[in-house]
Amino acid sequence: MYERVYNFSAGPSVLPEEVLLEASKEMLNYKGSGMSVMEMSHRSKEFMGIAADAEKLLRELMNVPANYKILFLQGGASTQFAMIPLNLFSNSKTADYVDTGAWSTKAIKEAKKYGTVNVLASSKESTYSYIPKLDKSAFSKDADYFHITTNNTIYGTRFTPDNLPDTGDVPLVADMSSNILSEVYDVSKFGLIYAGAQKNMGPAGVTAVIIREDLIGKAMDITPTMLDYKIHADADSLYNTPPCYSIYMCMLVFKWLKEKGGVAAMEKINREKSQLLYDYLDQSAMFKATVAVEDRSLMNVPFVTGNDELDAAFIKEAVAKGFVNLKGHRSVGGMRASIYNAMPVEGVKALVEFMKEFEAKNK
Amino acid sequence: MYERVYNFSAGPSVLPEEVLLEASKEMLNYKGSGMSVMEMSHRSKEFMGIAADAEKLLRELMNVPANYKILFLQGGASTQFAMIPLNLFSNSKTADYVDTGAWSTKAIKEAKKYGTVNVLASSKESTYSYIPKLDKSAFSKDADYFHITTNNTIYGTRFTPDNLPDTGDVPLVADMSSNILSEVYDVSKFGLIYAGAQKNMGPAGVTAVIIREDLIGKAMDITPTMLDYKIHADADSLYNTPPCYSIYMCMLVFKWLKEKGGVAAMEKINREKSQLLYDYLDQSAMFKATVAVEDRSLMNVPFVTGNDELDAAFIKEAVAKGFVNLKGHRSVGGMRASIYNAMPVEGVKALVEFMKEFEAKNK
Repeated sequence: MYERVYNFSAGPSVLPEEVLLEASKEMLNYKGSGMSVMEMSHRSKEFMGIAADAEKLLRELMNVPANYKILFLQGGASTQFAMIPLNLFSNSKTADYVDTGAWSTKAIKEAKKYGTVNVLASSKESTYSYIPKLDKSAFSKDADYFHITTNNTIYGTRFTPDNLPDTGDVPLVADMSSNILSEVYDVSKFGLIYAGAQKNMGPAGVTAVIIREDLIGKAMDITPTMLDYKIHADADSLYNTPPCYSIYMCMLVFKWLKEKGGVAAMEKINREKSQLLYDYLDQSAMFKATVAVEDRSLMNVPFVTGNDELDAAFIKEAVAKGFVNLKGHRSVGGMRASIYNAMPVEGVKALVEFMKEFEAKNK
Repeated sequence: MYERVYNFSAGPSVLPEEVLLEASKEMLNYKGSGMSVMEMSHRSKEFMGIAADAEKLLRELMNVPANYKILFLQGGASTQFAMIPLNLFSNSKTADYVDTGAWSTKAIKEAKKYGTVNVLASSKESTYSYIPKLDKSAFSKDADYFHITTNNTIYGTRFTPDNLPDTGDVPLVADMSSNILSEVYDVSKFGLIYAGAQKNMGPAGVTAVIIREDLIGKAMDITPTMLDYKIHADADSLYNTPPCYSIYMCMLVFKWLKEKGGVAAMEKINREKSQLLYDYLDQSAMFKATVAVEDRSLMNVPFVTGNDELDAAFIKEAVAKGFVNLKGHRSVGGMRASIYNAMPVEGVKALVEFMKEFEAKNK
């Protein structure tokens, strides 16, 4: 009926097959309503139920405390790069940022439009191959917030849950786009978490924002209404027509994740998956991982042979065998396997087998 | 296999059944790619092809001149309420607005944050039941733009294509969310047209912007990057991850509309559909249309009995017969039939038959 590939795309990326099947089946008639979810008023009982389920499931999966709001917004993480300073620069108009890659860099550039940004540390000089060590004495005492990117999709590094900066009373703000729901982070350590859906939550077009209530309601006067967290928080993300179908897909993914045992169970699988790859890379004579061991991502695994022709041959053969989107980002080169929640262990095992064969054949 | 209702929702609203069927079939494997459209990198050949087709089809359907860019953005018309002044207030920082309803009112309120707004006319005193006559001598000579809402979803009024304000050199800006692609407007008369997709184009979550090139590149310094038209125009709407699946659905709807004969053919059907309803309403002793004859919308047809109990009984019986979402907006009361492009003539005929029966039974 259909043939599926192993899709290692960095994002938008693979979704659980069960979820796609359910969406396909319900496309013309959602639970006897005689309508697609796409055709429903966002004020209808059916859609309000879907949105409420999405919120409730995400709250449960991430153990989000009661004093945090969960918002489903449009515009991607790129819009959050502006919303965060516009809403959070309420006192000193100063923020600390850690530069761990292309997305941090964009976030920093945008925040500079609206206040003072201290870049505390950067690993740019080594193509962001590690997470810089932070000197707590350099943190700004009066910062309105402190910004990190928990997982760096392009470079394959991450702030592990037990290595988050201790910012004291300064709210920690995190771009969690590429590793939300992949391992257990303690939400209460953050003031604000944001994530585009298109890696671990659903299709592109919706962005989840988890924000502590005391950070809401302090937007600058110049803030567009649609970029004010308070507008969306007060309306339970239904101020205007939301991206209904993307929220529905996220709800189905959250339901699937809960059935799999939740984030702790998924973390176990993700550790197994990434370890399969890193273990092979660390003993291979041909393929090498590019990231410092202690900072390695569970989601994005870049690797290189050091030989452009060999890289190209590998990627080409991989496609022929049904392993797609393994080409690395141009800034790192080589290959990258993105192994988000929806990538099954079998996909990673099959990839490692293929890598072994390729290495044996080409040594 | 499935039973569908006649869905008169004001938005999100009915989509062509053929389009939903195609989307359902391709959900797990888009044209042999082994992936859903939701799972594809937005930089992939497949998705770039989908986005290019969407742009090309919309350009063809609306006969968009070569010196206009077509953008697919996030945030809905509500985000455009801010983007327009932020990008177009480049000289006098003054704009003329016509107040024809709730959406105009919101657009006016947002523009006032960033410059001077002249509200030239309003029909608020009569619950927006007509389009105000405009006195050309009152137009601001030095306005940066002139804003109208071509179709007022809640009240059922519209600026007909031959009754647009003659703004001379001042760019005419139009919110066309609820009647884009429903009848032929001459795009060259406008500086900028914007429309949320969720009425005549596709699912909620994407907004089309058609903008004359000379209006791009003049955003105020405070404009968030994601709210600058130039950023999106320079990147062909792929500056960041776009709402890929919503764009794909729009592409399918555009293809369907082209197969139906395009906008002129659709206008003929829409005139027939709305006339069926208005003709019946104008002779009914029970149901009354609420809008001045010359300003009537082809898309949204509000009507009342003048009796709240009768209205409620009608809506309830209608649901039982498979005519759903006929309740009017609270500000007008009564009923509203939204009959967008995807509502077949048969649906409107069946509704009129049901109204006749209801009237006969309750007189």
